[in-house]
Amino acid sequence: VSAPIVFSGSPLDRLDQRRKDAAWITAQLGDESTRVLPVWRLSVLVRSGGTPSLAWATSSLLESVGAGTPPVFLGVVDQVAHFALDISSTAEPIKELEWEGVAEFPDLRAIAGQLPAGEAAIAAQARHLVDWHARHGHCPGCGSRTEARDGGYVRLCSECGAEHFPRTDPVVIMLATDGDRCLLGRQPNWPKPFFSALAGFVEPGESLEEAVRREVMEEAGIRVGAVRYLASQPWPFPASLMLGCVAEALDTQIVVDGAELEEAVWFTREQVVSAFESATQDLAVPPPVAIAHQLMRAWALEDARP
Amino acid sequence: VSAPIVFSGSPLDRLDQRRKDAAWITAQLGDESTRVLPVWRLSVLVRSGGTPSLAWATSSLLESVGAGTPPVFLGVVDQVAHFALDISSTAEPIKELEWEGVAEFPDLRAIAGQLPAGEAAIAAQARHLVDWHARHGHCPGCGSRTEARDGGYVRLCSECGAEHFPRTDPVVIMLATDGDRCLLGRQPNWPKPFFSALAGFVEPGESLEEAVRREVMEEAGIRVGAVRYLASQPWPFPASLMLGCVAEALDTQIVVDGAELEEAVWFTREQVVSAFESATQDLAVPPPVAIAHQLMRAWALEDARP
Repeated sequence: VSAPIVFSGSPLDRLDQRRKDAAWITAQLGDESTRVLPVWRLSVLVRSGGTPSLAWATSSLLESVGAGTPPVFLGVVDQVAHFALDISSTAEPIKELEWEGVAEFPDLRAIAGQLPAGEAAIAAQARHLVDWHARHGHCPGCGSRTEARDGGYVRLCSECGAEHFPRTDPVVIMLATDGDRCLLGRQPNWPKPFFSALAGFVEPGESLEEAVRREVMEEAGIRVGAVRYLASQPWPFPASLMLGCVAEALDTQIVVDGAELEEAVWFTREQVVSAFESATQDLAVPPPVAIAHQLMRAWALEDARP
Repeated sequence: VSAPIVFSGSPLDRLDQRRKDAAWITAQLGDESTRVLPVWRLSVLVRSGGTPSLAWATSSLLESVGAGTPPVFLGVVDQVAHFALDISSTAEPIKELEWEGVAEFPDLRAIAGQLPAGEAAIAAQARHLVDWHARHGHCPGCGSRTEARDGGYVRLCSECGAEHFPRTDPVVIMLATDGDRCLLGRQPNWPKPFFSALAGFVEPGESLEEAVRREVMEEAGIRVGAVRYLASQPWPFPASLMLGCVAEALDTQIVVDGAELEEAVWFTREQVVSAFESATQDLAVPPPVAIAHQLMRAWALEDARP
């Protein structure tokens, strides 16, 4: 995969050891140069007008929005600390914080491909972590309240003392190929003629390669032989790590499961290449922000093979 | 990686769609041919004497041990359904269930390499899922009780209705190489001269390749260029997916972090090859059950390069 993978390439140094030091985190939050990325209902703040870019506040934002979830440490670049802050409890942040005409909270999936290199990765990290905190206020072991620690990379149970860590779900996404054809699927809720690579969560007790084989068999009834990993992508909707592969189909007779896919079709290389230019009657491909697009491009144009 | 990866290669078909049907699951549990793998305090039951192999009970075991966690569906082979059952509430299962001299609960990590092909993968699936159920009796969102559904692949919150899915943590494990030398590390609690590949959890907002670069820099102070994925391994201690890579070191001056590693050392190919035969004064390598061993073998003997 030669094109950059959107949601990767963050310039920030996460300082995994340093962030465990609560005094250091507090000192960073007291520093005027520190930058805070507001996250509202899982959208990050982006500058309005012109080329989109992340809109950063200072840590005085913590006082403006009151004490809620503590800020999550994202990392440091050029000695400047960066945090994300969940301000979802603010009803109308653009109005209340006087950002009208200055910044907005667009849908991250729609805007990510337009952000400068690396900024989508920062947004991914922020969205993923803020969402994890929002949905893990209690200990799954005993049900008691948990509290954020270590700059937001641990939640500690106030009752049983269990430590909980951010969850990242590995997902396989694969282009099964049969010579000059590749297998694409359409989920029931996708408009025709939109098709993409097949995908699914890796399950307990299986390798990446086994997950690829299981998913292609389940969803399309196609047996798979060789599997080759090509590239990965953080996908914070809400918490996936996409592991992109090409896979060798061992047979060609498609049987869709009907549940996950409504339709699966073999498309020729020519059909895929045409659809990169613009959607055809038969095929609209995923946008470049999706690793599925990059897998298709690597196979169709760069000769990536299983 | 040419050697089989222990904990992968399960013969079971997981029937992901079928297992959602509670009536079908109940029917399987009523079938005399159904096999149930007892799991006691995270060890699976293994036959005593001779070559180790998994020891299966029938579903009458559910009556013997009383109603606790419901059985977890593992999959089907030759039309026989397989389940795992957590019997940890039984104080002395070997005695109480009259398995003395017949079967035992050895440490899975110690026994896995001796199990027949595919059985360690079944054990991994069972251990991973049973542990997940044991530690997720409450909803992380609201703290209320959760209940198992879908053959054990969902826990449903009784209060807020949130569905929770088994958690699998992606971990990068990598052999950084500098020509004919590879970088191995020793954690503070490991006895000398035991060394292994560096490893760490993938964090929110980073790709596999970025996690490799970050971990090698954090733990050993070495910059990494090209990263090549080689193989993966389910590692149910408790819930990891090991993603094994070789990585190109861009410099050679080691600076250990002191927290995660006590020591990191460049070892030559010759030193590694010698240590495969038997531990030397300088180096004892991980056993073949660990993907670290397979990565080292692929690099040292099969010319796998970044």
